[in-house]
Amino acid sequence: MPDHLRTVREFVRTELIGHQAELDVLTDLPLPVYKRFADTGLANWWLPAEYGGLGLSLSETVPIVSELAYGDAGVAFTAFISVLTTSMVTWYGSDELKQQYLTELVGQGGFCATLGSEHAAGSELARITTTVRRDGDSLVLNGQKAFSTNTDFGRFLVVIAKVEGSSDFLAVLVPRDTPGVIIDKRWDVIGLRASGTYQVSLADCRVPAGYALRGNGLRLLEIGLNASRILIATTGLGIARRLRDECMDYAKTKSVKGAPLSANPVFAGKLGQMEMQIEVMTNQCLAAAAEYTAIASRPDAADEWLRQGTLKSALTTKMFCGLTGWQIASVASEMFGGVGYTESSIAGKLMRDMRYVSIVEGGDDVLRDLVFTRYVVPVGKRA
Amino acid sequence: MPDHLRTVREFVRTELIGHQAELDVLTDLPLPVYKRFADTGLANWWLPAEYGGLGLSLSETVPIVSELAYGDAGVAFTAFISVLTTSMVTWYGSDELKQQYLTELVGQGGFCATLGSEHAAGSELARITTTVRRDGDSLVLNGQKAFSTNTDFGRFLVVIAKVEGSSDFLAVLVPRDTPGVIIDKRWDVIGLRASGTYQVSLADCRVPAGYALRGNGLRLLEIGLNASRILIATTGLGIARRLRDECMDYAKTKSVKGAPLSANPVFAGKLGQMEMQIEVMTNQCLAAAAEYTAIASRPDAADEWLRQGTLKSALTTKMFCGLTGWQIASVASEMFGGVGYTESSIAGKLMRDMRYVSIVEGGDDVLRDLVFTRYVVPVGKRA
Amino acid sequence: MPDHLRTVREFVRTELIGHQAELDVLTDLPLPVYKRFADTGLANWWLPAEYGGLGLSLSETVPIVSELAYGDAGVAFTAFISVLTTSMVTWYGSDELKQQYLTELVGQGGFCATLGSEHAAGSELARITTTVRRDGDSLVLNGQKAFSTNTDFGRFLVVIAKVEGSSDFLAVLVPRDTPGVIIDKRWDVIGLRASGTYQVSLADCRVPAGYALRGNGLRLLEIGLNASRILIATTGLGIARRLRDECMDYAKTKSVKGAPLSANPVFAGKLGQMEMQIEVMTNQCLAAAAEYTAIASRPDAADEWLRQGTLKSALTTKMFCGLTGWQIASVASEMFGGVGYTESSIAGKLMRDMRYVSIVEGGDDVLRDLVFTRYVVPVGKRA
Amino acid sequence: MPDHLRTVREFVRTELIGHQAELDVLTDLPLPVYKRFADTGLANWWLPAEYGGLGLSLSETVPIVSELAYGDAGVAFTAFISVLTTSMVTWYGSDELKQQYLTELVGQGGFCATLGSEHAAGSELARITTTVRRDGDSLVLNGQKAFSTNTDFGRFLVVIAKVEGSSDFLAVLVPRDTPGVIIDKRWDVIGLRASGTYQVSLADCRVPAGYALRGNGLRLLEIGLNASRILIATTGLGIARRLRDECMDYAKTKSVKGAPLSANPVFAGKLGQMEMQIEVMTNQCLAAAAEYTAIASRPDAADEWLRQGTLKSALTTKMFCGLTGWQIASVASEMFGGVGYTESSIAGKLMRDMRYVSIVEGGDDVLRDLVFTRYVVPVGKRA
Repeated sequence: MPDHLRTVREFVRTELIGHQAELDVLTDLPLPVYKRFADTGLANWWLPAEYGGLGLSLSETVPIVSELAYGDAGVAFTAFISVLTTSMVTWYGSDELKQQYLTELVGQGGFCATLGSEHAAGSELARITTTVRRDGDSLVLNGQKAFSTNTDFGRFLVVIAKVEGSSDFLAVLVPRDTPGVIIDKRWDVIGLRASGTYQVSLADCRVPAGYALRGNGLRLLEIGLNASRILIATTGLGIARRLRDECMDYAKTKSVKGAPLSANPVFAGKLGQMEMQIEVMTNQCLAAAAEYTAIASRPDAADEWLRQGTLKSALTTKMFCGLTGWQIASVASEMFGGVGYTESSIAGKLMRDMRYVSIVEGGDDVLRDLVFTRYVVPVGKRA
Repeated sequence: MPDHLRTVREFVRTELIGHQAELDVLTDLPLPVYKRFADTGLANWWLPAEYGGLGLSLSETVPIVSELAYGDAGVAFTAFISVLTTSMVTWYGSDELKQQYLTELVGQGGFCATLGSEHAAGSELARITTTVRRDGDSLVLNGQKAFSTNTDFGRFLVVIAKVEGSSDFLAVLVPRDTPGVIIDKRWDVIGLRASGTYQVSLADCRVPAGYALRGNGLRLLEIGLNASRILIATTGLGIARRLRDECMDYAKTKSVKGAPLSANPVFAGKLGQMEMQIEVMTNQCLAAAAEYTAIASRPDAADEWLRQGTLKSALTTKMFCGLTGWQIASVASEMFGGVGYTESSIAGKLMRDMRYVSIVEGGDDVLRDLVFTRYVVPVGKRA
Repeated sequence: MPDHLRTVREFVRTELIGHQAELDVLTDLPLPVYKRFADTGLANWWLPAEYGGLGLSLSETVPIVSELAYGDAGVAFTAFISVLTTSMVTWYGSDELKQQYLTELVGQGGFCATLGSEHAAGSELARITTTVRRDGDSLVLNGQKAFSTNTDFGRFLVVIAKVEGSSDFLAVLVPRDTPGVIIDKRWDVIGLRASGTYQVSLADCRVPAGYALRGNGLRLLEIGLNASRILIATTGLGIARRLRDECMDYAKTKSVKGAPLSANPVFAGKLGQMEMQIEVMTNQCLAAAAEYTAIASRPDAADEWLRQGTLKSALTTKMFCGLTGWQIASVASEMFGGVGYTESSIAGKLMRDMRYVSIVEGGDDVLRDLVFTRYVVPVGKRA
Repeated sequence: MPDHLRTVREFVRTELIGHQAELDVLTDLPLPVYKRFADTGLANWWLPAEYGGLGLSLSETVPIVSELAYGDAGVAFTAFISVLTTSMVTWYGSDELKQQYLTELVGQGGFCATLGSEHAAGSELARITTTVRRDGDSLVLNGQKAFSTNTDFGRFLVVIAKVEGSSDFLAVLVPRDTPGVIIDKRWDVIGLRASGTYQVSLADCRVPAGYALRGNGLRLLEIGLNASRILIATTGLGIARRLRDECMDYAKTKSVKGAPLSANPVFAGKLGQMEMQIEVMTNQCLAAAAEYTAIASRPDAADEWLRQGTLKSALTTKMFCGLTGWQIASVASEMFGGVGYTESSIAGKLMRDMRYVSIVEGGDDVLRDLVFTRYVVPVGKRA
């Protein structure tokens, strides 16, 4: 096991496990535990070495996120979701931008956020109404974004906006402290409560023209979502592993028909099924991450991503882990008898946490439609 | 539509719908809304006319509970769960007990509770360790009961206890204000938060010997559970109907690909499936209630129940509605996009409420085993 | 148990059970076993007393069909599917037609068929291209019908056809021996092989004008399908009961870990689940049949049917029993080990038979769409 | 694409696709198409180079088997199932045995078979009753084996037998033409009809003592099953890919509501789901094969296999592909309307073929129990 993973496990063991109650409520952000994670030196572990980062690949990231989510999915989500933003900046930001903002991010162990989705547009990104216009050497942004994680305490944002009077879209880096960035509210989410997701308004936010990233903003967002979708799926894996272990721990203490529950054949069958599903989730996350890593390692990665856009494996991994994770959570939440219906058990929290995998960054209907249109209809792209 | 059902609907419309926020938190019980339900004159609607009650049958009860649960499942559960207790008292209590306690219950529109399940025993009732012993003209009870609803604010309890030094069990009526009835704690449940479920200790609780109900306490509990299991299933039906209507309301306002979501074929397919499931749940609840009502209407109902014990239809109805309700909640909770993952949507609450159907009063594994042993193995009892 | 049901059981026991091999192949029709069923006096048991029939209701029919399908679903389908045709004739045929054709059907214990579906039209009946035109006192029909059961050996047919030069449709009775009725082929079906389904062409088939049934042909077909859909669902119930009993028989003989399979908790759980599903299927079939029977018993049944058209319960019952039956068949077909993959076991045949419930007379997608459009969108029609 | 895969595709295209009718019946074996596959030079592609084979790894085998099963799963099964036998011989046979029998197998492009399962023993291999005893320089075998594929036309067999008077088991190579090898019958299977599975008796079969393979016979069988289970799973993948393509082909020709079925959103959703499942199946098969290949490539592979026995990934891959493949077959078989219920469509055959994945070489209940006992209970082995 690599050292960094050992560090993550230790962090999970000491800082997350057993802290369920405090992590499952909405309190002021950033949480102290974010700082303690940064203190391990692992914050934003994927940032390139040229900006001082550890440069860990997505393949190396999957075990990290699975471990973090085993402890708490909200902390895991907070820790990795900046990758959606930084991957766009890394490949399509100017050298100056990268030098300034990525280096600073490494140094501070801080956060950044992407402002993509809007209420009316939903998953149809082309219907985004937030606008950007050129005004001299500046870009001016206006609009409202529905769901954006880490925004309030992030150092900088990337906003996806429609170019006024055009059908083009841009992705624009906006420092968090830019006047006009207004946090409308923090969402009262049903799970992942250790993370913070916000509705944000942009009122005449003005940034230098060079803060626009290169390329079509919608395409950049698609590219950024590849990593985050694979890692959202991976949190489902981590939660599933935790559920399995909680079931096993419970089954040792619970007696049924004069024997421990762990010796009950029906229980054994359910856990055997769960283990099978966990193994398949693991292999699927790793396979998608390997595909991602192979592209990301190319010298022409930025251009190759523009050609590929949304990876099929990112879509299928999130779908699969969301669906399978939900099956596991549904089975597990029934295993603890009446206690499982109370907050004395962690089963309810894990179930609520799991739910987000199938909802965030594209519901399953949206993803099925994307997979069909882009990968089933074009014969050559079928598996 | 009968008048009483019209009254229930009006109550649901004015007192429950739209009050989600206040009903989904643990606050002091009894809630004011319980009193407002009693003010409709419908509290404990099933109590026999000879004690001043309305005497509505279980067949008439199913629509009432479905409507109440459409509004709030916790309020519904609070309102009907006394039936578990009163049915044991009605059939197996002495005339004096009935005259006193049932008449009072009607007059006060109050509550009562059954103390059956224990931590170690789980669903294996024969492992109950709470004891009862004869001491002169009194019965003395000692033990701890894990899950009991309405107990704290109920007027009387029925306790299932093992006769000391014997393998017999008794069901004993214990007035709530009997010294030694100790509410250990209220459970912090993950749903149904408008109801109250308690862990209760009995420390040398002393009642007159005549407070024991006639017959084996475990058999009486089985008999009492018939009505409550059918009605727990029915709350699943009510929640399912609410989910469907919430989906339809949302779909009218949400646009997808330039058309309302309600015109989307995938959405239509899901709602068509849901409607099918709701109809089958309805018919199953009604069929079980009809079977129950037929037995309960017999002049020799008390004896016939002793012969039959657990009704197959009560087991299958709870299993079916729990499983199907969970499918509906799982599908519905994904339909609202990101908002569905927040407390701005009622989907999360309805999902948490739904979960109890498959957990309370016997998990599905326990019920499957019961159905198999009692109804599949004996050839003549197969459907 | 009513006498007629006792007769059916005896027929099933002696003529169907154990005859799997001969009933599961395509051979010349009608099979001798059809004649033996007619010899019981029960053929077309639903035909009205005024034509000499037994006049059994659909509620009484459900147990009959469940029993027949327990023996062989193909024989059951052959025996009841004429109801689709006769219900249209009974309510919308002229007195002369009924007197002649229904009386004859009773006397002969024979068959009739409906010619509705066409290849291109699929489930969109409005796209039917078979035509009927008036020619003096005659009607002349032309076209091709894709799937029609009992046609070759039926005494008369009812053809759904578009009126030439109009957007109207008619349902026309066509005696089987009418010149121009051409059996193109018998379908080589994957299950239900004791029944016969045909592709049929109509080439200038000429019948008297009075052979047209009263009312819109598509509406009449909808009405006729109510009974047959409920009974197709009921065959699923019969097959499911058979699968359960085959599993139980096998489990008594099979040893696992030193005990009979029937004592294995995983097996018990599966059979408990199956029994639950069978009970729900039973109640749903009976509930739909009761609704149908109530309408059919009205003095104004013919007009009421025209108002109601497709019954929601007929759609939901077929959907539910198809889906649930398939779950049961899927579980059961794995229970017999390697032998279950061979023709030494009846599991494979029962699985193939079961498949038809979800396919014939409208696939689930078509039915979901119908339920949504007709019963979810109109608020007042929701359950 | 490697050359050998191109060859396989060409073989599938010319020899299998379109030959459904002739491949889906039981006829004399070996089929001429087996010979034509051998003519491509690819028969037994995995046999080591030292015996003249191509030495392709299991990782390279997965695409081959997926392609063959895309054409016909029975032909695929026939072509790869010898690997179960040859892997035992390769790792645990004497040099003389290997030199003779493996070299001959390469030269002839022939077959071999394993005789493991017995009727009473089922999946509990320790209950095997076939015996082997030492008689001078010979071993003498007696017993009956329930299911063995390729046996009749195989060149040699490996028989798993209990050592008389001991609790040990041996795996013994028995040339097919040994006196006393009696083919009791060929099973009339419900799918995979291009393959041949037999019940076989051994009556005083005598072979040289050196024909016993090294090590415990049950352990060797476990080891042999690793490759075959992964490849059985892979046939599920191939069938699933075929089903998807058949659905797409049909959808182009079928019109629904005035548009091609392929433009229907419900259809798109189903195919998107299917593609997701196919991708996950692919990654799981490849991951298991990679794990297998890594062990098989070790210089100490034979000993390492003895340590590891049954691979978790072999169990989970077969379970997952069986379950998922069955979901796909269930969905697909409803997509063709009425034609899908006839032999005019390939859907029925593919469904019957798919069924074997969950049944052969251990049903899912058996595998779940194995996964639980060996990989969930020992904490360190959990994923």
